[in-house]
Amino acid sequence: MKKKIAVLPGDGIGREIASGAAAVLEAAGKRFGHEFEIEYADIGGAAIDAHGTPLPDSTLELARNSDAVLLGAVGGPKWDNLPSAERPERGLLAIRKELGLFANLRPIPSFQKLVQSSPLKPEIAGNVNMLIVRELTGGLYFGKPSERRGENKEVVVDTLQYTREEIERIVVKAFEFAAARGGRLTSVDKANVLESSRMWREIVNEKAADYPDVTVDHMYVDAAAMKLISSPGQFDVIVTENLFGDILSDEASMITGSLGMLPSASLSESGFGLYEPVHGSAPDIAGQNKANPLAMILSTALMLKYSLGMREEGEAIERAVQSVLNDGYCTSDLQMEGSTVVGTDKMIELVTARV
Amino acid sequence: MKKKIAVLPGDGIGREIASGAAAVLEAAGKRFGHEFEIEYADIGGAAIDAHGTPLPDSTLELARNSDAVLLGAVGGPKWDNLPSAERPERGLLAIRKELGLFANLRPIPSFQKLVQSSPLKPEIAGNVNMLIVRELTGGLYFGKPSERRGENKEVVVDTLQYTREEIERIVVKAFEFAAARGGRLTSVDKANVLESSRMWREIVNEKAADYPDVTVDHMYVDAAAMKLISSPGQFDVIVTENLFGDILSDEASMITGSLGMLPSASLSESGFGLYEPVHGSAPDIAGQNKANPLAMILSTALMLKYSLGMREEGEAIERAVQSVLNDGYCTSDLQMEGSTVVGTDKMIELVTARV
Ligand SMILES: CC(C)[C@H](C(=O)O)[C@@H](O)C(=O)O
Ligand SMILES: CC(C)[C@H](C(=O)O)[C@@H](O)C(=O)O
Repeated sequence: MKKKIAVLPGDGIGREIASGAAAVLEAAGKRFGHEFEIEYADIGGAAIDAHGTPLPDSTLELARNSDAVLLGAVGGPKWDNLPSAERPERGLLAIRKELGLFANLRPIPSFQKLVQSSPLKPEIAGNVNMLIVRELTGGLYFGKPSERRGENKEVVVDTLQYTREEIERIVVKAFEFAAARGGRLTSVDKANVLESSRMWREIVNEKAADYPDVTVDHMYVDAAAMKLISSPGQFDVIVTENLFGDILSDEASMITGSLGMLPSASLSESGFGLYEPVHGSAPDIAGQNKANPLAMILSTALMLKYSLGMREEGEAIERAVQSVLNDGYCTSDLQMEGSTVVGTDKMIELVTARV
Repeated sequence: MKKKIAVLPGDGIGREIASGAAAVLEAAGKRFGHEFEIEYADIGGAAIDAHGTPLPDSTLELARNSDAVLLGAVGGPKWDNLPSAERPERGLLAIRKELGLFANLRPIPSFQKLVQSSPLKPEIAGNVNMLIVRELTGGLYFGKPSERRGENKEVVVDTLQYTREEIERIVVKAFEFAAARGGRLTSVDKANVLESSRMWREIVNEKAADYPDVTVDHMYVDAAAMKLISSPGQFDVIVTENLFGDILSDEASMITGSLGMLPSASLSESGFGLYEPVHGSAPDIAGQNKANPLAMILSTALMLKYSLGMREEGEAIERAVQSVLNDGYCTSDLQMEGSTVVGTDKMIELVTARV
């Protein structure tokens, strides 16, 4: 098969790890007989510098004409003092909205080799295998009005808005994943306070009828923030609205012992998707050949599985990563006793050789 | 001194632990020569049953005529199917709003004896001493509109609203606490997305000028959710808006190893306050003499210190609790190796004897 992939390296370590994505795609292409045509474009700070905007039309155009998108990371101190409407993150929010990427998927597994790096006790961190499904194009992130009011602009409002349809489509996605996985869905809301959460909860209960094999429970977001630490092993699939998902998925990412290992997928209704590591652009270590490319590489594996119908190919990459860790290699962000610490390039090489 | 205290036991274990508050007040009164006049009233489910509303006027009236309020906990399965506007939690939200209790304080210490019960590794959990300052009467909790819209009610909105004044007063409170403690303030927001967070951040920066000895930093709420687990020891005072505070303070409460130990204070501008444990009404163990009364007792200590100007008295209670733990007593929620597990009544007796 021939597939066109848009690669948007972005800023900071995004630029280094993007080459990891390209390298494993080439290796997977050789082994399985596919051709991946990769085209690069700017987003975030790099796009601000080159085009004066964090999401140039040309980048959006390229994304639309590709079979899938890989993104590195955006942001950095260079752009921190710009007005918020012009900052690198705007590029990320805009591409999500423009491409209709409403379903953000964050799998949180335990990596046996990394359990020691978790701030949680090994008996708690070692037994985790959850998928967080976060709504990505609604809620407080995009609701209007979002403004200052009054004679002296002394009042400020943001709006948490959802349509029934927006809630339904993310809830259905989550049920589908739960049905295909462990059969348990936890819907997280704040229905004791928010009207939007009450509608969310009603819709989850309605849709539950279509998935008799999935066990559903509801949890308040504050309770979920506790349980994610005290008993993360209890979760299979979690579904929640945009901002709750932002907070809880970052919290949950700490369980595994390294942000540097976690991929994410953001899908549209057609199954088109953007894939990116959960970690940020890490300006403090950018350009030093220190960044962990594994989250980017695992994001590439997710892309093959979810958007390109290449399950076997994706799993080959995941196995290659596992095998490199098992052989005792790691990057400097991982604390693995007795392991050999290698740089970004070497890590990419090690994985590529095993695909 | 003579002080009038309103005690609102509420529901579930709230009823059992409230007697702990009364007992330590009596003991402290004897030792230090004060008279505490205690009057009881209903709130939450108990008030729904007795008066048809979760916050009867008579309860509010009593609270207004007292020097401070102690609250147990509200809620339970009996009232779970009521429409949300009539549920026990409404009583809690209403009393906060009616009494202007805008500043919710949640101290999160490490209890050396309990470090083993934390889901975090002891080297991480053992070194914590933070205060979370949560805004309690604004934001998404009270903003209007909060409604369904459209011909078929297919759109739902909630409103995150703050006035400049509301943000200023909570930020000033937090600076005062930071100045009196470790001199470090972390303001948590989502300024890369929310206009309200940008105003919040501006106000924090403005007020910082009045507190040259306090070091301020800003953190996004998603990053804060990570850091609270990975390096909770880095925090001194955290200040944040209502819903972020709800989520983060519950997350942080897990660090100590037991919710059953954590008190909270909710203060108005005059310093009047309502004091309550962080834990809920725990219907599953209610009425079994199993509940841990220490959070309620420590809430009583906070009341003495913050609202009644009785620092010494409050500290005597805190020392009594510490001494009971050091002597190897605990309730069944705490996992302390080699300790003697006692019931609610016995625990209250042990603490009272030591005041
Ligand atoms: C950069 C920021 C706007 C973004 C978000 O909040 O969605 C990020 O935290 C994420 O989770 O991808
Ligand atoms: C019961 C609920 C409405 C309340 C809140 O969200 O404020 C509780 O979680 C709390 O933190 O006191």
